[in-house]
Amino acid sequence: MTRLADGMPILKTDTLVAEEPLEIRLGGRPLTITMRTPGDDFELAAGFLVGEGVVTRAEEIRAIVYCAGATDEGANTYNIVDMALADGVTLPDRTLERNFYTTSSCGLCGKASLDAVRMVARWSVREDPLRLDPATIASLPDRLRAAQRVFERTGGLHAAGLFDAGGELLCVREDVGRHNAVDKIVGWALQRDLLPLTGATLLVSGRASFELAQKAVMAGIPAMAAVSAPSSLAVELAAETGLTLIGFLRGTSMNVYTGAERLGLTAAAVP
Amino acid sequence: MTRLADGMPILKTDTLVAEEPLEIRLGGRPLTITMRTPGDDFELAAGFLVGEGVVTRAEEIRAIVYCAGATDEGANTYNIVDMALADGVTLPDRTLERNFYTTSSCGLCGKASLDAVRMVARWSVREDPLRLDPATIASLPDRLRAAQRVFERTGGLHAAGLFDAGGELLCVREDVGRHNAVDKIVGWALQRDLLPLTGATLLVSGRASFELAQKAVMAGIPAMAAVSAPSSLAVELAAETGLTLIGFLRGTSMNVYTGAERLGLTAAAVP
Repeated sequence: MTRLADGMPILKTDTLVAEEPLEIRLGGRPLTITMRTPGDDFELAAGFLVGEGVVTRAEEIRAIVYCAGATDEGANTYNIVDMALADGVTLPDRTLERNFYTTSSCGLCGKASLDAVRMVARWSVREDPLRLDPATIASLPDRLRAAQRVFERTGGLHAAGLFDAGGELLCVREDVGRHNAVDKIVGWALQRDLLPLTGATLLVSGRASFELAQKAVMAGIPAMAAVSAPSSLAVELAAETGLTLIGFLRGTSMNVYTGAERLGLTAAAVP
Repeated sequence: MTRLADGMPILKTDTLVAEEPLEIRLGGRPLTITMRTPGDDFELAAGFLVGEGVVTRAEEIRAIVYCAGATDEGANTYNIVDMALADGVTLPDRTLERNFYTTSSCGLCGKASLDAVRMVARWSVREDPLRLDPATIASLPDRLRAAQRVFERTGGLHAAGLFDAGGELLCVREDVGRHNAVDKIVGWALQRDLLPLTGATLLVSGRASFELAQKAVMAGIPAMAAVSAPSSLAVELAAETGLTLIGFLRGTSMNVYTGAERLGLTAAAVP
């Protein structure tokens, strides 16, 4: 790599963010391909299934393995993961119909029709009695950054962190794809049978998109905060489901789009 | 929305980035769904087909229309676009096999197997005689920001800009999905029969992922610059295809990962 600064080119080596395709299979059948940062692939695959409404308990996935055969020579490139569901666990019919496929930075992947974009969670995050302290929420981005090891070095990774109501970090994951980082966290929680993630807050390093909000709800997470802006559809979903949605979380300021009652806020209207 | 700053909650209205699903159909058959910022949908659909290697000339798409029928009442929600290919233009066999689907912030969508992740362009960007002036490249981010209308207000949009070798902005597009912004630019170019985009530079506001690099190559763009980091696979693809890839373009400094000869750089190695 040639670094050009102040007009002086110098040759440097650079730590690049790894990005590779991961093919996720279910019972040997290709389900989706995502561009991801290698690592925590089993969590990613398991979390993906939670987001699709297929599983909510660890025992519902009987096995997760890397498949050989990704190259013509049959070598294992660790880019294909196959999952077997436990006896009696079936894909919802509409999931099978969907024939879904996915990729980098998105979690809404491969819906064959618009009807299939919205998932229905098995629990209601609206009923979660979580109360949030604004000062604790304001401290989360610093706690997330402190827990990140790769970001400062490469500048190319999205991060997601899961916190308890007291602001303690439960899990942090990074990935080139925002939705992959969230899937990895949800998969981590599934494997510990922590779903629904009652009382938890999900922090994402970028913006709050519809798909990330949906993944939070599908995992039973009652609050999501983002460093950047939410989209209109994310706010709409949060209002419908009872998810507390916070955006532009910077320093001690934040925008609370939905569920402000969890922060004990009574706002004065300004013109 | 409740804005919390310095401990004082105030009620405010906020301009949210619009995010809605777009279903892209080909001959009435659902091809992909992407979460996008509404607007320039025909460009998005056309650009998507270029990225998939289906078309390279405007006349190869006979018609693009919005479909009615997105709701049970058959109303037109402007969230479904159908394209008809011209006589004699067919989907590559492997595309049909793929059954591909896509979504927000990715362009690599719905490959059913790892083999299908890499596309083959009809032209070689390596042979493009483009020469780039580092000072011109350094000026592009400011030019892109000046052309953006929505970003400053909402903070949630990705931007992509297409520039000629002299640094003149040819086209700018914004979207919640990075790959959508690039698809819209490529679709804009297709509709003007500008492909391959010889001598052009694509600037993206975020990081340089594999899928964005691939979309540039599929459109015949010989140089891509990103404000943030490239991924390992993006650098690999750029090296293979002859794409000049620049990352961390900030102020007058930049990292040139591949194709530094186009910038006339002879670098001195440092330890």
